[in-house]
Formats: sequence, structure tokens, C-alpha cells
Amino acid sequence: MEAAYCALCKRGYADLRMQDIADESDRSTAALHYHFDTKHDLLVAFLEYLLDRLQSRLDAAAVDDPVERVHRFLDVMFSPPRGDPVDAREDFHTAILEIRAQAPYDEAYRERLAAFDHYNRSVLQEAFEEGVEAGAFDPSLDQEDTATFVVNAIRGAHTSQASLGQSPRAIERVLRAYVESLRTDARGELADPASATDVEGEGSG
Amino acid sequence: MEAAYCALCKRGYADLRMQDIADESDRSTAALHYHFDTKHDLLVAFLEYLLDRLQSRLDAAAVDDPVERVHRFLDVMFSPPRGDPVDAREDFHTAILEIRAQAPYDEAYRERLAAFDHYNRSVLQEAFEEGVEAGAFDPSLDQEDTATFVVNAIRGAHTSQASLGQSPRAIERVLRAYVESLRTDARGELADPASATDVEGEGSG
Repeated sequence: MEAAYCALCKRGYADLRMQDIADESDRSTAALHYHFDTKHDLLVAFLEYLLDRLQSRLDAAAVDDPVERVHRFLDVMFSPPRGDPVDAREDFHTAILEIRAQAPYDEAYRERLAAFDHYNRSVLQEAFEEGVEAGAFDPSLDQEDTATFVVNAIRGAHTSQASLGQSPRAIERVLRAYVESLRTDARGELADPASATDVEGEGSG
Repeated sequence: MEAAYCALCKRGYADLRMQDIADESDRSTAALHYHFDTKHDLLVAFLEYLLDRLQSRLDAAAVDDPVERVHRFLDVMFSPPRGDPVDAREDFHTAILEIRAQAPYDEAYRERLAAFDHYNRSVLQEAFEEGVEAGAFDPSLDQEDTATFVVNAIRGAHTSQASLGQSPRAIERVLRAYVESLRTDARGELADPASATDVEGEGSG
């Protein structure tokens, strides 16, 4: 799976061959074909591996405080996993964008991408729900819609990073300020965007 | 160009042939080839046509009041052009997503998509700048970052509509409430999301 990751970053999706993945690993293409009939099967398994990895990272980043948990979620979405080179992220998002563009025609891809989407939205929705309950987030907040909104803003950022080479930093900055503006104690004055990137330990529940 | 639009909605990008476009028009493929050497050339011209059309729609929707102008921008982004069937929108976004996924490898596509992105961001940034100047939007608003953020949230919505079949309505709702929350008169109380979709004539500049 790590070999698939490296091969996708280097070759992209359309041109990827089983040979490229074998070249990045210590296995032969025959060994790969023993487990996966086609490149498509391997990539479906790769998407499942990515979701597992994301779940592990989000579990490791989770904290009790719901506001801080949303910021940790953004940390995970906007930074590469430990050990991955930052340079590879744009190439990786390019490959994922290619798979995403195939999803309307490919039910197996679509199901796995929908599982990602569902998982991300549920993590955020739960944090918003707990935050509202604890009095940390504004009670009028639509928790489900807001979770969907945040996930899609991140998706837009990754899409622009891949297709236009744009940095996602502006979007990350505004998202963090947005999350701060949803806090109960942001009522009466808008959150200061400058402080929004450093909220460690600002529990308000 | 209208024939290209119909053909893209029906066939998608990867399977599109010049013949499909000819079939939707009253021209022969020979006539199409007289103007465009390849499908690629035709689609580059098609992207330019789309940008022209978008610019006309945004010009027609523009109003003096900057807050209302942002909402009109969202109207254009979230509703099909007059005469286009609503059903075709998901198919159309699917074709655009395929072209977007090619952009990292195709400079001509990338340049045209970057022109869209630049135009959309500049329309919004100008509205935010004028709104801040007129006292309608919060003076601490980062106008450039916020414009980038809104454009990318819309991009995420269209990407999810195409790749996962998700409705963009939740994202539109939250975006409108977000725009309302940036208004000067939203200080002290959060904007009521229920009223955010009906701001006709609420000039505050």
C-alpha cells in the first residue's frame, strides 16, 4: 500500500501500471497479481487503506474539548502524515482527483470515496453536537450542515491544490477563523483570525 | 458550443467524440474539424465560451449593494443558466471534474480553469472590499482570503455533486449564513440563517 502511494504520486492514476507499484516495493508484479487481479482492485484496496490510516490519525489527534477537536481535524486535513514528504502532497491530491473524476462511472470508487466523506462529516458533526451541548458552540448552529460545509471547503482546497497548484493555506486560515466565529464566546465580537491558529488548551466547555 | 455542452452532459469527457458533438448540432464533423483540429482544441474553446457565459451572467446579476452582490454570485453558482435543465447540472459538473483532473497534465486546460478561478475570486474580493469600505462588512475581514475560501467551498460542493451525487444545498445554506455573519450588523448577534436566503433590497452600504 505504501508502494501504491509512492507510485501514484510519481505516475498519477491514468498512467499507473502494476509494474510501477512493484518497482516501489520488494514484491514482483506476479506477487501483486496474486492479491489483486487488476490495478482497479488494488486501488480500491488502497482507498480502504487510506481510510484506515485517516481514521487512525484522527483517533490519535482527538481530544475531549470539541472546539480543539475541530482544529485538530483541520491539522490532519491540511498536513501530510508523519514521514510523508510535503512535496508529495500535491501529486497525491492529483491522483486522488483523478480517481474522484472516475467515481461517477465506477461504483467501487464511489462507495469508498463516500465512506471517506461520511466518516469526515460524522467526526465533525459529533464535535459540533458535543460543542453545542457543552455550551462551547453557538446553539443555533446547524451541526450537520456545518460539518458538510467544512468537509467541502477542504475538498475544494485539495481540488485547487491539485488542479491549479494553489496553496491551501488561505482556506485553512479562513476555516479556523470560521470555527472560532461559531464559538459561544465569539458572540458580541468576531473572533480574531490572528489567534485562531493557536487555540491549544482553550477549552470552553 | 451548445452542442458541446449537450454532448459533454450525455457522454462525459473521456468518451466524447467529435461525432457526438456534431450529432447535437446541425454541422458535420468535417465542419467541426474545419474550426478545431482535435477534441482537445474544441474543449479549450468550450472552456473559454463557458467563462464568457459566466461573466455575462455575473454582470447581469451584479447590483450596487456589495452584500446583495455576494448573494447574487451564489445564485449564479448554485443555479443552472436559464434554459438549461436542472437534471443536466450533475452530468455537466461530472464532465468539468474530468477536465479538472486532466489539468495537472494539460497546460491549456489549467490556464482556462485558472482564468475561471481568478475571475470568480476577483468578483468576490471586489464585493468584499467595497462592502468593508461602505461599512457593510466587518472591517477586520481579510477580503482576499475570504474570496478564495468562498470560491473553494463552492468548488467542493460541485465536486461532491459530481463524484458522490450529493446535493449542494447544505453548502449553499451555510455559505449564505456565513456571508450574513460577516456583516457589520451581525456583530453582537449571529445572523439568522433562516433569513439569509432572502436579502433582496437589504442595502446596508
